[in-house]
Amino acid sequence: MRRSERIVRLTRTLMNHPGEPLSLTEMADQLEAAKSSLSEDLAIIRDVMEEDGEGTLRTQMGASGGVLFEVDVAWTKAREFLERAILRLSQGDRILPGGYLYMSDVLAEPDVLRMAGKMFAKIFAPMAPDLVLTVETKGIPLTVMTAQYLHRPFVVARRDHRVTEGSSVSVNYVSGSDRRIQTMSLSKRSIKQGARVLIIDDFMKAGGTVKAMTGLMSEFDAVVVGTGVFMETAEPEEKLVSNYISLLTLTEVDESRHRVVIQPGSYLLGNPERLVPTVDEKPRDQTEFK
Amino acid sequence: MRRSERIVRLTRTLMNHPGEPLSLTEMADQLEAAKSSLSEDLAIIRDVMEEDGEGTLRTQMGASGGVLFEVDVAWTKAREFLERAILRLSQGDRILPGGYLYMSDVLAEPDVLRMAGKMFAKIFAPMAPDLVLTVETKGIPLTVMTAQYLHRPFVVARRDHRVTEGSSVSVNYVSGSDRRIQTMSLSKRSIKQGARVLIIDDFMKAGGTVKAMTGLMSEFDAVVVGTGVFMETAEPEEKLVSNYISLLTLTEVDESRHRVVIQPGSYLLGNPERLVPTVDEKPRDQTEFK
Repeated sequence: MRRSERIVRLTRTLMNHPGEPLSLTEMADQLEAAKSSLSEDLAIIRDVMEEDGEGTLRTQMGASGGVLFEVDVAWTKAREFLERAILRLSQGDRILPGGYLYMSDVLAEPDVLRMAGKMFAKIFAPMAPDLVLTVETKGIPLTVMTAQYLHRPFVVARRDHRVTEGSSVSVNYVSGSDRRIQTMSLSKRSIKQGARVLIIDDFMKAGGTVKAMTGLMSEFDAVVVGTGVFMETAEPEEKLVSNYISLLTLTEVDESRHRVVIQPGSYLLGNPERLVPTVDEKPRDQTEFK
Repeated sequence: MRRSERIVRLTRTLMNHPGEPLSLTEMADQLEAAKSSLSEDLAIIRDVMEEDGEGTLRTQMGASGGVLFEVDVAWTKAREFLERAILRLSQGDRILPGGYLYMSDVLAEPDVLRMAGKMFAKIFAPMAPDLVLTVETKGIPLTVMTAQYLHRPFVVARRDHRVTEGSSVSVNYVSGSDRRIQTMSLSKRSIKQGARVLIIDDFMKAGGTVKAMTGLMSEFDAVVVGTGVFMETAEPEEKLVSNYISLLTLTEVDESRHRVVIQPGSYLLGNPERLVPTVDEKPRDQTEFK
């Protein structure tokens, strides 16, 4: 096999399996290549990915050696993406009753979901989550894509008691936006004790829904290691949760003047790594892939 | 730039944008390469992708020339994937009340969703859908991934009247499984007249839900060009819809004996292209990329 063909196959395999440790031995067998050639190829791929800010390869040499492709999003590309999103979402006819914004069309576009998923995966990968959690319905696509790039499963809490999957755990909560008492349920078999959980949602006002998800996780003895939302509102300034990352901030919605003002969220402010919450436990797997 | 580096970048760009026409001129500019070199590189990538049954490149030469990466799934890989899924899902403790099967964990795994999404994209790409439609909640992840590989947006119908996004269209229907009257709603602004729609869902018994989605689409003057479900049940044999493709068929659920029997669905039976429904209209864009 020519080197160029091997590089196509290696790049494809890595991009098909972001966040997943792949065996170097298996790769070498499949490509009928010596491990030394493989290492050279992987070095080329890593250099290109890092130069372009598209990702990096974490390799572990030795008999049980592996390689893991971790997605990255260059800050300039993240900024460009958010600026385009702001332009599209800042349209007066997107205002919905209650100060909400019509975002369903934007959050259903393959490019938007891919970028948002990569951005969340990049920022939360160091926290080594075991799974991604959301509550139905609109946060699911963002959760699916984030989980893809982290190579983790996800769990969707129901907004009612309709859990048909055996016994379940429920929490009642007051949504910050309309003060109604709501219920959130999750099948008991869906989360293991001690799991490290990343919460993803599309929209956050006061943070009541995210707080309820955090409460639900404590019922499972699981640890929330991070929270990411696509859009938060500037008001109320005091949220029910701290330690979350937003891609966008909705600063102003003026129904009468059809005016919407959106700014980049905390993701782009300063060094976002600082905003990732610290938990007591040391992230697992961190020593495995350097 | 060395050829090997260019091939990493080209492979990455194509895999990041399945189903999306990409400009050859822009690619050549970004890679600072002559179009002739680019064509050679793309030929290498196409040969490898086709040899491995992982996809193909459709190119159009000329001034406004473009290239489009269309995902493929080799039949052997599809079969292996379905056999693994059958093994995992054929566990007696997965039986839920009403003859349903607990699949949430499997349908939340990144590898399962990626493969299922690719399989649906491969089989329905020739029908040139404009968008993918599902109804909340469990079909959403499959829909997100299928839409990714087709590079199309998706739309999620609500199971109630809670549509907050302006005026909406609703249909009432009787779900084949429990004979309850249910409602399905969709915002009026979400689908354009004449749109070609691919329906995706996780589970189908009699087909009442899919039939309701088809009815909803006729309210929008949209055309359903295909329907794909992850799992159908063998009973009832007579469905309310024809012309659909299933990845798996649930043949037997015996609660008392904790017995589950699953077989490959129509996807693997014979030549699945035959099973794609024919519609009157000629698929759009088919002439663009040969």
